[in-house]
Amino acid sequence: MAVYTDITDAELEGFMAEFDLGQPLAFKGIAEGVSNSNFLLETDAGRFILTVYEARTHEKDLPFFLTLLRWLADHGYPCAPPMPARDGDLYKRVRGKPAAIVLFLKGMSVRRPSVAHCREAGRGLALLHKAAEGFSEARVNDLGQSCWAAMFAGHEAKADALKPGLAATVAADIASFERLWPQGLPGGVIHADFFPDNVFFQAGRFAAAIDFYFACTDALAYDLAICLNAWCFEADGSLNVTAARALVAGYGAERPLSKAERAALPILAWGAAMRFFLTRLQDWGPAPDGALIKPHDPMQYERKLAVHRAAFASGEGLVLFGAAE
Amino acid sequence: MAVYTDITDAELEGFMAEFDLGQPLAFKGIAEGVSNSNFLLETDAGRFILTVYEARTHEKDLPFFLTLLRWLADHGYPCAPPMPARDGDLYKRVRGKPAAIVLFLKGMSVRRPSVAHCREAGRGLALLHKAAEGFSEARVNDLGQSCWAAMFAGHEAKADALKPGLAATVAADIASFERLWPQGLPGGVIHADFFPDNVFFQAGRFAAAIDFYFACTDALAYDLAICLNAWCFEADGSLNVTAARALVAGYGAERPLSKAERAALPILAWGAAMRFFLTRLQDWGPAPDGALIKPHDPMQYERKLAVHRAAFASGEGLVLFGAAE
Repeated sequence: MAVYTDITDAELEGFMAEFDLGQPLAFKGIAEGVSNSNFLLETDAGRFILTVYEARTHEKDLPFFLTLLRWLADHGYPCAPPMPARDGDLYKRVRGKPAAIVLFLKGMSVRRPSVAHCREAGRGLALLHKAAEGFSEARVNDLGQSCWAAMFAGHEAKADALKPGLAATVAADIASFERLWPQGLPGGVIHADFFPDNVFFQAGRFAAAIDFYFACTDALAYDLAICLNAWCFEADGSLNVTAARALVAGYGAERPLSKAERAALPILAWGAAMRFFLTRLQDWGPAPDGALIKPHDPMQYERKLAVHRAAFASGEGLVLFGAAE
Repeated sequence: MAVYTDITDAELEGFMAEFDLGQPLAFKGIAEGVSNSNFLLETDAGRFILTVYEARTHEKDLPFFLTLLRWLADHGYPCAPPMPARDGDLYKRVRGKPAAIVLFLKGMSVRRPSVAHCREAGRGLALLHKAAEGFSEARVNDLGQSCWAAMFAGHEAKADALKPGLAATVAADIASFERLWPQGLPGGVIHADFFPDNVFFQAGRFAAAIDFYFACTDALAYDLAICLNAWCFEADGSLNVTAARALVAGYGAERPLSKAERAALPILAWGAAMRFFLTRLQDWGPAPDGALIKPHDPMQYERKLAVHRAAFASGEGLVLFGAAE
């Protein structure tokens, strides 16, 4: 949760003058999203979220994210597309920062997803991959497998401080990924952060996805692997096999996985755990003064790494995810 | 801004089961209010704010606040009344804390009130005092003049650290209030925190007031004096006389001030500055770990104290507030 940027009524008025959405009737900072500032904005024209993009979202990437959201909405995917300004721009500036107005979406995220939620989440992810087919723009995954060695560099001591010997284990994992990472899987736009807090449900059904600000181009099955880690682990660090199978089945019901994709899931899930372990390790440390959020504990993903490392070594992962079926 | 209490979907579901407001359709923590946690809650029945009462709002006072809000709404005052639970209770519990569901109000607060806003704010405060006439419950003002000596006790060193000699000045002020504080002014329910962030406007007109969690029984003109300090000072610490006169005139147009009330305004404004100086002094210090809000700087109110002290001594305050007219 985060509201970083404070916007005055005068600043809002100036910003709104660039859009054709009427007068603001209500405006409240909301605790949603960890990388940007979000505000509930009600105007004569409806209800919206005003998102102010903070340092973590690079302005050079905004056209990709925002045109993707428009494409997805135009192709029937339930997401929050940006409202164009009077001059057609998809974002403008407020207090010197880029900012967009997107539709307000109904729906609620779930804290502890049930097996049924996992199945629906898988379905929602597959719908996203299908809706994005034909979207012509691309964005390199700058947190992808080829970047992990560079992301880890300089953080070895922090890893060993978390757990003695962890740096060597992580380095060995990264070396394994360099040898074994699957190539040539079906690719396209991935959400790359399809976590429970970014997925809305209504009456138990997938309703919408938000926070596309890590979206990029990569193997589609890797997006599913990210979800396996985000949705299917218990608080005690164990994988809920029933939930994992439901997620994969929900995905496959909308977009059947190829044999190669199913076979790749165990290492993709292991690698997806590495990606989130590494960014959490980078962010780990004392929170700066005035910080509204605490960094996520990297050890949560260290345990997921260990689960997938063991499952990959034993071949058990193929069974876990239904890939051997 | 603040969201202190985190509520899971399961906790929300349990809480909502006590109300007859349908299913939750959207739920977001919002950055509003400094003493409590607030959430935007949309259900089949409409839009609401769920307020979770944190330590600063004492549960013993909730029946006064909530029945007052219902009374005010029933008497036409634009505020956010609590929605009764199925059993008629005005609040229930979530995560062990008292929590109420109140109507969502349209309208926006202003950061830098214009003279016209001050006039409207005065009108909105007078409407509140009139709407509350006949409300039979009472709550002692536990931050009122009789408490200031006790509120200051133990904080002398902190005052002197802010400004050498300040402790003696404050002690002398408090002694002056004990001698000079006006008695017998018309009393009733006061909001006691009618600051710009608690007052909503629509199209430049007063639209609603929120955050009644300091409401209590005291002199009505003291409430106006609190507003003078909150609405009519420039960033440089000077009183905007035009704004102050507009606020008093806006109030008087709805509820004419008696001669005694007008004459008392200079010392009431001086005392109102003391009340906010003292609570800010009490709260002043390093923010605790994980705090979402920073304490207000007491020196802002030290400057207001100085302005009113001088105006009272010179008799100039009577002119400033139009009390001599």
